[in-house]
Amino acid sequence: MRIGELSKATDVPVPTIKYYLREGLLPAGELTSPNQASYGEAHVRRLRLIRALIELAQVPVAQVKEILESLDSDTEPLHEQIGRAHRALTPTRRLNATDEARTAATAQVTDLITTRGWKVDPEAPALATLIDTIAALHTLGQPALAAHLDTYADAVERFTALEIEAVTANPTRDQLAESVVIGTILGETLISSLRLLAQESISADRWTSG
Amino acid sequence: MRIGELSKATDVPVPTIKYYLREGLLPAGELTSPNQASYGEAHVRRLRLIRALIELAQVPVAQVKEILESLDSDTEPLHEQIGRAHRALTPTRRLNATDEARTAATAQVTDLITTRGWKVDPEAPALATLIDTIAALHTLGQPALAAHLDTYADAVERFTALEIEAVTANPTRDQLAESVVIGTILGETLISSLRLLAQESISADRWTSG
Repeated sequence: MRIGELSKATDVPVPTIKYYLREGLLPAGELTSPNQASYGEAHVRRLRLIRALIELAQVPVAQVKEILESLDSDTEPLHEQIGRAHRALTPTRRLNATDEARTAATAQVTDLITTRGWKVDPEAPALATLIDTIAALHTLGQPALAAHLDTYADAVERFTALEIEAVTANPTRDQLAESVVIGTILGETLISSLRLLAQESISADRWTSG
Repeated sequence: MRIGELSKATDVPVPTIKYYLREGLLPAGELTSPNQASYGEAHVRRLRLIRALIELAQVPVAQVKEILESLDSDTEPLHEQIGRAHRALTPTRRLNATDEARTAATAQVTDLITTRGWKVDPEAPALATLIDTIAALHTLGQPALAAHLDTYADAVERFTALEIEAVTANPTRDQLAESVVIGTILGETLISSLRLLAQESISADRWTSG
């Protein structure tokens, strides 16, 4: 199909498609004449993935590019691909907490990971974020949430087992890699919006009639 | 204490404190002379909350202000305060999905909410985000994750019950409101980083030796 048809099939404007082509997010079409290229189903699929990452998960373009390059690599281990999706998702900002709170948070998280036997890179950005968050809860005088860390981790393990099951339902390596990336990123949005709805509902029950 | 001491106690630079004062995020100190104000423990506490919202949860300044105004209102119902924190957290961007996928997603989510008896405002931004996310999973050819929606919701209900329990451990209304806001926003970061760590661990088990 031509670029206009690709635009219609995906609801992405032609100038945006041209931008993705220039930035290397979308592979070039097959040249059918010096001025014209033809696009296929793979382009439709890739464009939808790009839009989901940018619009829904709000991943910056530079990181979308990195994720897609990783997806297109035949040699990069799947574990590395997941790592890239993770880095695109994890905020790297740090919060000032008291030293005491940070030391206690580090001990609590280390204990959690050891007890559960999780295999985690000590440099994983999510590890720093988790420690920061717990330290912040203590610094802000809200230790109760942090105290439930283990129960949180229980529920999270159930999610994750589900997600791995859903992802491995796909047979080919290409599909598997794509599901891992989509699952990591859109699964986040799924859980977060469910949580807000459940909170709203419980909050309505508890606090509107009072 | 003076502004310099407040800066030292919270590790927030004096110019940043002055910016928060000008923007109305932080209440003015008590004037002790025409050029000098004195700050107390309430300022320390409020500054830490502001930094957590901005640095860790990445809430925009305009929305931090809205949340804090809501916190300082004696009359706004707690349910409304939670609603404000939610709106600050929920991305409002929308994703193009096929009409068919969106119709199916709307039906699935409506069914979920009815079955669980959740009381949710039909205009809640998290509702639109959830429907969009499920439609996107279908459009991207990843129905398996969306199919597990009910199991996700089960685990999320467990989180939420925990969070409500943690929050109601605080006695006064002021403390309650503050915990709700902190819990809603930092709880999100807590769950998200735990999920990434659990995924990394399972991924390391499954795919690094292959």
